[in-house]
Amino acid sequence: MFDYKLLSALAAVTEQAGFERAAQVLGLSQSAVSQRIKLLEARVGQPVLVRATPPVPTEIGRRLLNHVQQVRLLERDLQGQVPALDEEGMPQRLRIALNADSLATWWAAAVGDFCTARGVLLDLVVEDQDVGLKRMRAGEVAACVCGSERPVAGARSLPLGAMRYLALASPGFVERHFPDGFVAGQLAQTPALVYGPDDLLQHRYLAELGIEGGFLHHLCPSSEGFLRMAEHGLGWGLVPALQARTQLASGTLVQLLPERWIDVPLYWHHWRHGGQLLSDLTDHLARQAARWLVA
Amino acid sequence: MFDYKLLSALAAVTEQAGFERAAQVLGLSQSAVSQRIKLLEARVGQPVLVRATPPVPTEIGRRLLNHVQQVRLLERDLQGQVPALDEEGMPQRLRIALNADSLATWWAAAVGDFCTARGVLLDLVVEDQDVGLKRMRAGEVAACVCGSERPVAGARSLPLGAMRYLALASPGFVERHFPDGFVAGQLAQTPALVYGPDDLLQHRYLAELGIEGGFLHHLCPSSEGFLRMAEHGLGWGLVPALQARTQLASGTLVQLLPERWIDVPLYWHHWRHGGQLLSDLTDHLARQAARWLVA
Repeated sequence: MFDYKLLSALAAVTEQAGFERAAQVLGLSQSAVSQRIKLLEARVGQPVLVRATPPVPTEIGRRLLNHVQQVRLLERDLQGQVPALDEEGMPQRLRIALNADSLATWWAAAVGDFCTARGVLLDLVVEDQDVGLKRMRAGEVAACVCGSERPVAGARSLPLGAMRYLALASPGFVERHFPDGFVAGQLAQTPALVYGPDDLLQHRYLAELGIEGGFLHHLCPSSEGFLRMAEHGLGWGLVPALQARTQLASGTLVQLLPERWIDVPLYWHHWRHGGQLLSDLTDHLARQAARWLVA
Repeated sequence: MFDYKLLSALAAVTEQAGFERAAQVLGLSQSAVSQRIKLLEARVGQPVLVRATPPVPTEIGRRLLNHVQQVRLLERDLQGQVPALDEEGMPQRLRIALNADSLATWWAAAVGDFCTARGVLLDLVVEDQDVGLKRMRAGEVAACVCGSERPVAGARSLPLGAMRYLALASPGFVERHFPDGFVAGQLAQTPALVYGPDDLLQHRYLAELGIEGGFLHHLCPSSEGFLRMAEHGLGWGLVPALQARTQLASGTLVQLLPERWIDVPLYWHHWRHGGQLLSDLTDHLARQAARWLVA
């Protein structure tokens, strides 16, 4: 069998984004971790990590990590069946990547009872919906919620439904920029809110209104900060309908064009041989997601 | 004078975290950006970037970036005085690093009117309060809100006040884990919420209760997600009092120990020669921050 001491070192360095922190987590010296990685590289005959800040797995390193992730999930099952194996008696952990807007809205409501009932601890990783799959491919997470349907090798994807995004701004913002009523053509000269360089929702919205090219915008890489900036009149932006219920009800945010929204489909990606716990969580999400996401 | 075409290329590669995106922003080919970096390195006689993913500035690279940041701030002033210089007629941009909890709570309320009145667009970068200063030192941001008082060379720090964090959980969570009343000693066996590996607030809280060592926890690197997870009974955690007002009022979250909280002081770091706009924003924050932060 593989030497899992070496593979665990690789997983720790990648997951903790550095040798120093990996050593802390493993309870080893940094040079011991370094030795294990070198030994692993000697065994596989090629580098498994690019020594950058943070260290990045090579192609072969990614395949090894993917394998570690799957073995961990299988170990979890076995611990459930043979409790004595679980030396530390610790609750089970699931490492999951998801987009910030899911985490800010429906995620906790959907999984709260499941995690409590099954004693699961979550290690959540926030990734843009378009890049979360990279974490799966790298074997760093057991599952991910993201915007692409196509599963990575060894995994399955389940459609959860779509998040509906509404173009919102404060009434003061609308009054200031559109005193004579909303004019779509002026939207490019009106400050928008953009989550980050990978967020193209506002671009899509403008393109659908026939507006191409650049537009004024703030960058705000925080789901909650985005909402706060909209409320305080800094810009207009596409906000999950789920997140703005209170604001829409109280009128602190209003829709720019009530008949025009963007639905972003979300998929649950999980390892095919991910064990019973992951499979149960998948079934749970399949039943629950429709309470928050649109069909 | 320096060749600012070359320095802008360095700034773009660092700020955009890659050559490809830097090229897009600069409207150049990727090889042109690469050429500019190489030319800059030939001029200064040493590497300015470590070619990692993402590229990381070297010590000399950081000093150059710091200089670029300060020149940009001075240019902004000049554009205000000589509007014709501002070729594109674009609003002014300020790039600011701040902690996620500030962005999720008081930030937009504090700066909204200022940015609207002065036509400022914000490029916000979310950094843990203990690491935001690295962005200043690297010359990547004009200012930052963070937890350390000591300014970097060329900058000043202004105390803004402190964010108060309360240890909160849902009533169901408290009932489930402490059916016979709260017992501090049992807290380590009760799932906590931790924002990420750099978040030591829960550790501090436990240490102040005399509990040392590890404790059960979820990892949730999202300010809003953290609150959602507490509301849905996944764990207890330290939440900004500002963020949980509604939940405390409605009783969906309760304090574990009403007389025990943690105050985290925040400082505004800004370049000393950062120009009039940054200096006005600093004065504005000095007057406003006390509305949200405690003395």
